[in-house]
Amino acid sequence: MDIETNRAALEAWLILLRAPGLGSVSLRELLAAHGDVRSALAAARRGAHARCRDEACRDWLRAPDATRIGADLDWLAQPAHALLTCDGADFPALLEGAPGAPAALFVAGDSSALWQPQVAIVGSRNASQGGSANADAFARAIASAGFAITSGLAEGIDTAAHEGALGAGAATLAVLGTGPDRVYPARQGALAARIAAQGALVSEFPPGTPAHEKHFPRRNRVIAGLSLGTLVVEAGVRSGALITARNATEAGREVFAIPGSIHNPLARGCHQLIRQGAKLIETAGEIIAELAPLAQRLGAELRERLDDPTRGLPSPARDAVASRATDPDYARLFRALGYDTLGIDQLAERSGLPIATLASMLLLLELEGEVVAERGGYTRRSTTSC
Amino acid sequence: MDIETNRAALEAWLILLRAPGLGSVSLRELLAAHGDVRSALAAARRGAHARCRDEACRDWLRAPDATRIGADLDWLAQPAHALLTCDGADFPALLEGAPGAPAALFVAGDSSALWQPQVAIVGSRNASQGGSANADAFARAIASAGFAITSGLAEGIDTAAHEGALGAGAATLAVLGTGPDRVYPARQGALAARIAAQGALVSEFPPGTPAHEKHFPRRNRVIAGLSLGTLVVEAGVRSGALITARNATEAGREVFAIPGSIHNPLARGCHQLIRQGAKLIETAGEIIAELAPLAQRLGAELRERLDDPTRGLPSPARDAVASRATDPDYARLFRALGYDTLGIDQLAERSGLPIATLASMLLLLELEGEVVAERGGYTRRSTTSC
Repeated sequence: MDIETNRAALEAWLILLRAPGLGSVSLRELLAAHGDVRSALAAARRGAHARCRDEACRDWLRAPDATRIGADLDWLAQPAHALLTCDGADFPALLEGAPGAPAALFVAGDSSALWQPQVAIVGSRNASQGGSANADAFARAIASAGFAITSGLAEGIDTAAHEGALGAGAATLAVLGTGPDRVYPARQGALAARIAAQGALVSEFPPGTPAHEKHFPRRNRVIAGLSLGTLVVEAGVRSGALITARNATEAGREVFAIPGSIHNPLARGCHQLIRQGAKLIETAGEIIAELAPLAQRLGAELRERLDDPTRGLPSPARDAVASRATDPDYARLFRALGYDTLGIDQLAERSGLPIATLASMLLLLELEGEVVAERGGYTRRSTTSC
Repeated sequence: MDIETNRAALEAWLILLRAPGLGSVSLRELLAAHGDVRSALAAARRGAHARCRDEACRDWLRAPDATRIGADLDWLAQPAHALLTCDGADFPALLEGAPGAPAALFVAGDSSALWQPQVAIVGSRNASQGGSANADAFARAIASAGFAITSGLAEGIDTAAHEGALGAGAATLAVLGTGPDRVYPARQGALAARIAAQGALVSEFPPGTPAHEKHFPRRNRVIAGLSLGTLVVEAGVRSGALITARNATEAGREVFAIPGSIHNPLARGCHQLIRQGAKLIETAGEIIAELAPLAQRLGAELRERLDDPTRGLPSPARDAVASRATDPDYARLFRALGYDTLGIDQLAERSGLPIATLASMLLLLELEGEVVAERGGYTRRSTTSC
């Protein structure tokens, strides 16, 4: 959403997102009934939805706190800050397809990372050393295969997963149970800053929202919804990671779990998931093999949405391989790509293609072995025919 | 089979079992076609089965080595040595129901142990210390719940499983890939002697048969066929334990596997089994809970076969609990049972009931909590109503 040209719509979004007790389900219902966000706000002010007739909500909608909304707009005006709303083309398609998706996401960092195919890696805060080492190694390998790693910025497994992706020079997304400007726990601040610089911090909660117990199940649902699959590395039987896994199943996504010693209490949650049908995973390669075809399909669909002025309407997926030979965008990308590693920003500059478009094109090429992703950059694969 | 009264039948069995190239399938076909073993031998001598017309087989059937057969009879005449044949009531019903069952079993030890509900515990010869400790602990717990533990007398997991059962004072069965008078590897001799004293050594190979690579898959099939379920504790992906597990599946039995660290190569075989549908097991209690109802049903069926002069004919299983109150055998058993621990031999002597009948009765009572089995003996459970 372009802040300059559509400030009124953005303000309407912020007012609705902050309306006490409205919630994303009602907000989505208002949008569906009234077409656009400004009409939805006007309808909400008329009490068109039952939730808007509750006193606190009604009072807020009539007289929202201008200072608060102004502060939100200031936050969004900062570099690499964004609001992705469910009525916009930038809202991540996978999340949109998941039950209970939020109506909007505040993003600090590279919002094109939300378009990348993602693997969630989650688990216990009190991970064993072995569990953390596994999370790091799996994140590193899966990230090196072209997936972004999504997790929850908690200590233990989440931290190791983010670190593994960062170490591989790949994008990682941290979904927060606080506003995008807060970090919980506070000692994760340095990690959060590195994630914002190499991936994105993502939150459905507006700036300034403090941590609250009830936010974390919603945070988990976003982690699962953004991702093609969720890997649980180590988790006790009452771990939040099992909620994320259940969310993933509800969204029709794959659930993976790493088994462990029967004497490790943090293997119990993983074993429970395996008994319930999660895939038992021994190597990162198994996850990559399972998800690569889904990522390829997702990449083709995203690309089509970006290219297609009638986007949002259902249309049969084009044959990505067939279209590529004659596609002028691919020709521009191939001219820009060399045998030295280039970052996506450099490729965007050289090719003139938008980053989100590039991300999906590069993924397709990577999955087909024409492009190598390493240390955050891309190279054409050398072949004997070159 | 009573050696005194049926020496001719026993000789016929030994001649057929030793006939070169005949095999258990052909032997069973001859028996089915000709009714009893002496008629089967006569038919075999006439070349009634294709396999009997091969030169070596024909020559042996015409002139079997009397010294060899005499030595077998001598072996069988020793205390606690027996031959259980598939035409006899003593042949274990579960094994008879398994595909590829042998035609007869040589037993050294307590052949009534073959009537007990059994759990196979198998795995790698090169087990880790943790794997052996698990095998021992699971065997101990499962044996204490009233099951015999069946394994293959190999080093590693098999040894730990036998030791666990012995330590619990319970029966354990070692199925051999050699004759019942041989032990492979030889350093397992002391363990084999303890198993013969507290359970049984079991083999489909006649006395004197040395170890041979091709015997071990057949040994594994007998382990799986005798048991209500097979637990694989630790196994590499090419382990013989996986063959036992497959045999168990083919026989319609449960397969259980203990997961482990993804960095333990001996967890790989277990993980492979879990992916193929084996139950992931964390505690012995899960196996006991799963198999106790099957054991109860088996006990009732065995008891019915023993009681029923028309045994072998299908008949609906009687309600074991209902019959017990009025059953004179149970009354005799209850009179014999005290609150001091008694061995099954003492109970047989006091009650006048055959050991095989007693074993199934005691199992039922044990599973219903009326009798406690400990250290190889039985006690009535104290209740407030007593």
